[in-house]
Amino acid sequence: MRITIKVPATSANLGPGFDALGLALKLYNETVIESSNYFSISVKGEGSENSHIKTNNTFVTVFYDIYKELTGKRDNFRFSFFNSIPFSRGLGSSSSVVVGAIAAAYKMACFKVDKDCIVNRALVYEAHPDNITPAVYGGFISAVVDKGKVIKIKKEIPDILKAIVVIPDVAMSTKRSRSILPKQYKMKDAVFNLSHAALLSAAFISEQWDMLKIASQDAMHENMRMQALDELFEVRRIAYEEGALLSALSGSGSSFLNLVYAKHANKLLNALKSSFQEFKILELDIDNDGFSIAES
Amino acid sequence: MRITIKVPATSANLGPGFDALGLALKLYNETVIESSNYFSISVKGEGSENSHIKTNNTFVTVFYDIYKELTGKRDNFRFSFFNSIPFSRGLGSSSSVVVGAIAAAYKMACFKVDKDCIVNRALVYEAHPDNITPAVYGGFISAVVDKGKVIKIKKEIPDILKAIVVIPDVAMSTKRSRSILPKQYKMKDAVFNLSHAALLSAAFISEQWDMLKIASQDAMHENMRMQALDELFEVRRIAYEEGALLSALSGSGSSFLNLVYAKHANKLLNALKSSFQEFKILELDIDNDGFSIAES
Repeated sequence: MRITIKVPATSANLGPGFDALGLALKLYNETVIESSNYFSISVKGEGSENSHIKTNNTFVTVFYDIYKELTGKRDNFRFSFFNSIPFSRGLGSSSSVVVGAIAAAYKMACFKVDKDCIVNRALVYEAHPDNITPAVYGGFISAVVDKGKVIKIKKEIPDILKAIVVIPDVAMSTKRSRSILPKQYKMKDAVFNLSHAALLSAAFISEQWDMLKIASQDAMHENMRMQALDELFEVRRIAYEEGALLSALSGSGSSFLNLVYAKHANKLLNALKSSFQEFKILELDIDNDGFSIAES
Repeated sequence: MRITIKVPATSANLGPGFDALGLALKLYNETVIESSNYFSISVKGEGSENSHIKTNNTFVTVFYDIYKELTGKRDNFRFSFFNSIPFSRGLGSSSSVVVGAIAAAYKMACFKVDKDCIVNRALVYEAHPDNITPAVYGGFISAVVDKGKVIKIKKEIPDILKAIVVIPDVAMSTKRSRSILPKQYKMKDAVFNLSHAALLSAAFISEQWDMLKIASQDAMHENMRMQALDELFEVRRIAYEEGALLSALSGSGSSFLNLVYAKHANKLLNALKSSFQEFKILELDIDNDGFSIAES
């Protein structure tokens, strides 16, 4: 059997929706897995220059955890990775790996690939639902974890919205980026985030795009995290000046997610490109499907 | 001129949506105001037994604040109050008074009664938007205050949902009920509330009623406040046993709001009535219009 699994990048938090809200983007890690007499790994794209990725590969580790549990066997496969999601940039690359590995293991073991099952198994590897859930289902996601299960509401995003993603040339580790945050919050800040997260969720679901800017304000994490890379404040300033509807740190950074009406996307893309020539800046569509598997 | 202004009761917080989410109920304070040679007040219904209501009447105070500002005069009026919203029970009676007084002053001063203007003026008297906003617009409301203005998304609730409101025979002061809460929250609890408030908002707006129970869980205030009246835990237990979709402390209490499919409302009403004979228990529709003014 030979399959190709494709998992989207994701942008979590969206400002106030810390560990709760996320969005999937049409930027994919693709992995081809085929039955083989020998085990092998090849990596193209993101990570291909890093030899550790071949010897200590999270996708392969998670894949075999699940595959062995389902089949009792450790068969050989050839894994070919074509990675487009940059590492440690707040674009959900590790969630994409976990979701892809679990779903691929179910498929290769000839089990039904049930999205609800995959997302709950992914929760064992990723503590928060904000990246894995859009990676599984696509679209805008509002999620909680209840009794060990992901409970979510999904909204498909129409193609009048585009994402302009700014990807700095420096990595940010999620662990470090989380360690700088306080352990406690004032009631005022907690209320600020819950009220804005609720309004943001309402704005996405009712398609009130002009509400996104006010609703996506945060008082719990963004400013503290953005101080590691001052240019991000300038990214946001320019983005709003050039018509962005929402401009938020993507996950724990270092990337920045800007949402904009399609008709203004080019203008925003060019403005950001001319100001941040050292950063990678991509115009992306929203992914409304989540991961997919094709047999070939 | 003679007008009747009718302002609905409101239920704020709805679990995790502390100071942010609210719902209007078809239970009204009605006030008739007519031009007169003499100033007079009469009170029927809630508050009629309390002589302070006549001498120190918040409605009249707020009304004249605004009326004098708009007209430069202090004309005499006859105020006749017909109050159905109980005092200090977490059903938005003080928001109803503030909203009603401001809107009535605009009307009697022959100014345009603009709902966006009324809600922002009400914010001067009530610090949080969660009661005044549904009192003004009706329906389910997700709101924030941004630069001194209320920013909201409203959702009209279809009549397949009914509210069963349990009104205990003890008052709870909002001030006291707020003073027992902590000044700081653990990140875990702040994230719990923001993720659930976002999901709750999404559930209301996408009409996914079966999500309300999970989404309406709170980690910031309810348990602490409910300890003042142990029976409330039993109210919730029975409500969920009898098919409630959501069962939450109304505002800062002492009332409890239960939402239920219309077809199960009677069963829930009877179960609660037979268990809590000393409490007032009302079946109410959701108000989708907010305050209204009629000339007569």
